[in-house]
Amino acid sequence: MRALQARGETERSHINSRELGEASGVADAQVRKDLASIGATGQPGVGYAIPELMEDLRASMGLHRTWKAVLVGAGNIGRALLAYPRFAEEGFDLVAVLDRAPSVVGRKLAGHTVQPMSAVADVIRRTGAELGIVAVPPSEAQIVAEMLVHAGVRGVLNFAPRPLRLSGSVAVVAVDFTETLERLAFETTMKRSLGSRSRDT
Amino acid sequence: MRALQARGETERSHINSRELGEASGVADAQVRKDLASIGATGQPGVGYAIPELMEDLRASMGLHRTWKAVLVGAGNIGRALLAYPRFAEEGFDLVAVLDRAPSVVGRKLAGHTVQPMSAVADVIRRTGAELGIVAVPPSEAQIVAEMLVHAGVRGVLNFAPRPLRLSGSVAVVAVDFTETLERLAFETTMKRSLGSRSRDT
Repeated sequence: MRALQARGETERSHINSRELGEASGVADAQVRKDLASIGATGQPGVGYAIPELMEDLRASMGLHRTWKAVLVGAGNIGRALLAYPRFAEEGFDLVAVLDRAPSVVGRKLAGHTVQPMSAVADVIRRTGAELGIVAVPPSEAQIVAEMLVHAGVRGVLNFAPRPLRLSGSVAVVAVDFTETLERLAFETTMKRSLGSRSRDT
Repeated sequence: MRALQARGETERSHINSRELGEASGVADAQVRKDLASIGATGQPGVGYAIPELMEDLRASMGLHRTWKAVLVGAGNIGRALLAYPRFAEEGFDLVAVLDRAPSVVGRKLAGHTVQPMSAVADVIRRTGAELGIVAVPPSEAQIVAEMLVHAGVRGVLNFAPRPLRLSGSVAVVAVDFTETLERLAFETTMKRSLGSRSRDT
């Protein structure tokens, strides 16, 4: 997708399966087969029209539509998400914000009046939200996630550094800042050892 | 690593290359070869001692030591990171916090007095920080990252939803919440289509 976006920003209108294969490390024939399975067809000798291909890919990934999400937790992470500039244009609609702290409930944040946790089932039914964002302290993450799922949420984004145990039919994506820093430490270590190796030779 | 942690939490003391291969989708022989390359050796018929193996893996990933990091941006993301409970115990030491807003500079946050951006070179030299965390508005991310790198940082964690252009010798890891939500939407779509498929059969 990123390779495509980069191509789309240049002046080219088409991309062929060989180029896609090189960018993704997959054989041409497999690229054509995979793309055919999501309904994308290229023209022989010309390739795939980039705008149509991106639309087909987005549709296959569930990104051709708007997803409604409720946010639980109006702390620092929650506020950062509410201030995030690109959600709406990428098809994510934060339809409600909930928090359990009486000092926060009723306050207005980025256009949303913070709702109490007791309203969770009602809010999810009324808005039809399918995604839930858990931005609460670790000790509350599991119970909050269960409340969201019980109320009808099908996917949970978990910012608490604690694994959630939920039904296998619920999608869970975790953002763990420690893991992110570990990845950075690893990549920094790799860059250094590559750098010192190239200086040696 | 996660597979190992799970094993380590049970009562077993060893794990063999077949089990590691199954958990990671790699052939036994390749597991033994990869682990030998980082200095980990197992006993035939017994396997690898889990604590030693984890230590060897951590060392190979650059995680056996403490990494000092400076945080730029004392907004919501920065404050969330400062409140994050597990950095220190995982070997990440946030040694300084900087911000360009005069209203924030000099304030105390999680034990750190917020420094002005003009102090960046000095702070990094004095602390020896190798990692920088960019938690500033998108319009400032590039210049802040360049200041960090110029001052000696070798790895950058970027929370701004804008790609950084930095020297190839600098490691960059980006946390983009829109991409994270896209992954959740994709996985939620997959779960649903799997669910409806299993109901059909």
